[in-house]
Amino acid sequence: MKINNTPFRTIWLKPDDPATVQIIDQRHLPHRFVIEDLKTLEDFEAAIRDMHVRGAPLIGSAAAYGMYVAAISLRDEKFDEKMLKAATRLKATRPTAVNLAYAVDLVLGEVFKQKTSEAKVAAALQTAHTITEESVEHCRLIGEHGLKIIEQIAAGKQLPTNNQQPTTINILTHCNAGWLACIDYGTATAPIYAAHDRGIPVHVWVDETRPRNQGASLTAFELKEHGVPHTVIADNTGGHLMQHGMVDLVIVGTDRTTSTGDVANKIGTYLKALAAKDNDVPFYIGAPSSSIDWNIRDGLREIPIEKRDAEEVKKISGLAEDGTVREVLLTPQGSPAANYAFDVTPAWLVTGLITERGVCEASEKGLKKLFPEKF
Amino acid sequence: MKINNTPFRTIWLKPDDPATVQIIDQRHLPHRFVIEDLKTLEDFEAAIRDMHVRGAPLIGSAAAYGMYVAAISLRDEKFDEKMLKAATRLKATRPTAVNLAYAVDLVLGEVFKQKTSEAKVAAALQTAHTITEESVEHCRLIGEHGLKIIEQIAAGKQLPTNNQQPTTINILTHCNAGWLACIDYGTATAPIYAAHDRGIPVHVWVDETRPRNQGASLTAFELKEHGVPHTVIADNTGGHLMQHGMVDLVIVGTDRTTSTGDVANKIGTYLKALAAKDNDVPFYIGAPSSSIDWNIRDGLREIPIEKRDAEEVKKISGLAEDGTVREVLLTPQGSPAANYAFDVTPAWLVTGLITERGVCEASEKGLKKLFPEKF
Repeated sequence: MKINNTPFRTIWLKPDDPATVQIIDQRHLPHRFVIEDLKTLEDFEAAIRDMHVRGAPLIGSAAAYGMYVAAISLRDEKFDEKMLKAATRLKATRPTAVNLAYAVDLVLGEVFKQKTSEAKVAAALQTAHTITEESVEHCRLIGEHGLKIIEQIAAGKQLPTNNQQPTTINILTHCNAGWLACIDYGTATAPIYAAHDRGIPVHVWVDETRPRNQGASLTAFELKEHGVPHTVIADNTGGHLMQHGMVDLVIVGTDRTTSTGDVANKIGTYLKALAAKDNDVPFYIGAPSSSIDWNIRDGLREIPIEKRDAEEVKKISGLAEDGTVREVLLTPQGSPAANYAFDVTPAWLVTGLITERGVCEASEKGLKKLFPEKF
Repeated sequence: MKINNTPFRTIWLKPDDPATVQIIDQRHLPHRFVIEDLKTLEDFEAAIRDMHVRGAPLIGSAAAYGMYVAAISLRDEKFDEKMLKAATRLKATRPTAVNLAYAVDLVLGEVFKQKTSEAKVAAALQTAHTITEESVEHCRLIGEHGLKIIEQIAAGKQLPTNNQQPTTINILTHCNAGWLACIDYGTATAPIYAAHDRGIPVHVWVDETRPRNQGASLTAFELKEHGVPHTVIADNTGGHLMQHGMVDLVIVGTDRTTSTGDVANKIGTYLKALAAKDNDVPFYIGAPSSSIDWNIRDGLREIPIEKRDAEEVKKISGLAEDGTVREVLLTPQGSPAANYAFDVTPAWLVTGLITERGVCEASEKGLKKLFPEKF
């Protein structure tokens, strides 16, 4: 998608230096646009753990390219053993997203098939590319399938009079499941961009998404750069808006989906799902199959929830009046804080999963129809 | 309650200068402790509108003292007419809290009964004092009644073995319905302080309460100063905690309660009430009768919801590393924001109202039992 009218992806090989991977260092958005070079396994560990890159699909791609960069530095002796260690280190950076382990294991499998270190490096790079391109195509398809949902809602809102202006569709989203969380298009945002680009008037309520404010900083940034009308709100606000008919549709992303349709996503998603259910607002998940953990059935019991540093709750950074980005303390110095990064929305609160193969009910039955080979 | 071991209230007459009212200017908490002199009607309008003081009971007291200060400057001619104008101006500062109009009208009624300006000023002061002392006593009683709920939960959690350490009761609260929102004790916090002071081990999950962060800045501050164990969490977190049995009880305040038990409180309260219902967590309201609007029955349709400046969402202030309090921008410069200050929690989500006369069901029937004279 575009930033200041220039097309970008979130991760790419550095032109003229294919041993270096470049990313948008998202910690500086929306105030500064910084491109970072990643040259070592340690660079990738830090970039994923400290959220220079974030979002399940992008974490998957980044981990795959991390395996590639790790492979470059190895020689034949104990190559596979060292790749296994790199895989373990990368998997330990973020525990919740299933894409990470999936991507790392895919690269590992392809590397093991090859005999020479040259072939192993090439296989790692090719697999990282494949994961990345597949992810882009899946997001594009999620946009097409989700577009139909928005078109249906638009048709329902439209009063049957002639010459009427199309009615704006109000869509609420939480966190950033936008193209910045992916490689391009986004998952939750893909249907929004598809609708906007087709001339359906959409307006997005952007949950700021404390504690890390990915909504206020990233989703608002990418919607603004693409020209999609939007309004930033505190995370507390969505229930009130739904009570008053000001939300037509909720679309969020997922960090891990169970085979039964439970969804682990950014902390606070569950609260919006409850409000959507209480107010009959459709609640959809942009869910590429790479986010689905086919081995688990009970999201609440089986998905590990990452607990992050309490300082992320106690402090926040933003643009100060002097033009510098500063961190400020929000709480009393002596008050502790807790930082759970995700929650689980049970399947019964989810209207449907928008996957690359189509939209299905959030249930084993629904997923079986679209992905029979997984069961 | 105590700050740094010195007893304080939130509002008082200045010693040796009874024409001046003093308040804790809460905008500077938790980073600085500032006492402000209020000498004119304009001072009170600014203090209420710009939230130097906030919280329904404190707004009521402040408005009453504002009427008193307005009265001091008047002479006999057109005294009552000018007091009516002062009342209108004070009522316009915050639209949602019912205490404000209630307190202002009470002072007005007492002023109208008197003939001389001296008697009118004295009546205004006396009424402000009465409202304030009554508010303190009501908070104290809410503490006593709410304590019984906590004791029951503690008894239920206690396993029937000998010599066992008492189990900690985890209580979640949203915003600040603490003593800083009142004159003393608080409404939602009164039962917590009562339990803590009686040796029942309580731990409070403090919602930070965006956009103005009254939880992270005020509730955390007053709990810390009083020595009550607590943890600050993002507003998104409560649902996850309730799903995992980490919340035994929710107690929040109310800015306006209908005669049928609907509750307008800080934006986001409704979302926590939905999560409490979904997880069978008791959800109580610290509701002094001064917060009850006996004339309305439908909270969602009849309670006006204040829409505040979008800048409160886009920016936040905190303590920078250089020791200054700074405001920082959280969103892209060009992204709009919306700032709804309250939402309405329908009565069916409320386990009970803790009033100064006891605990009742959140319904007309429940309120009728405790306040028959109001129906």
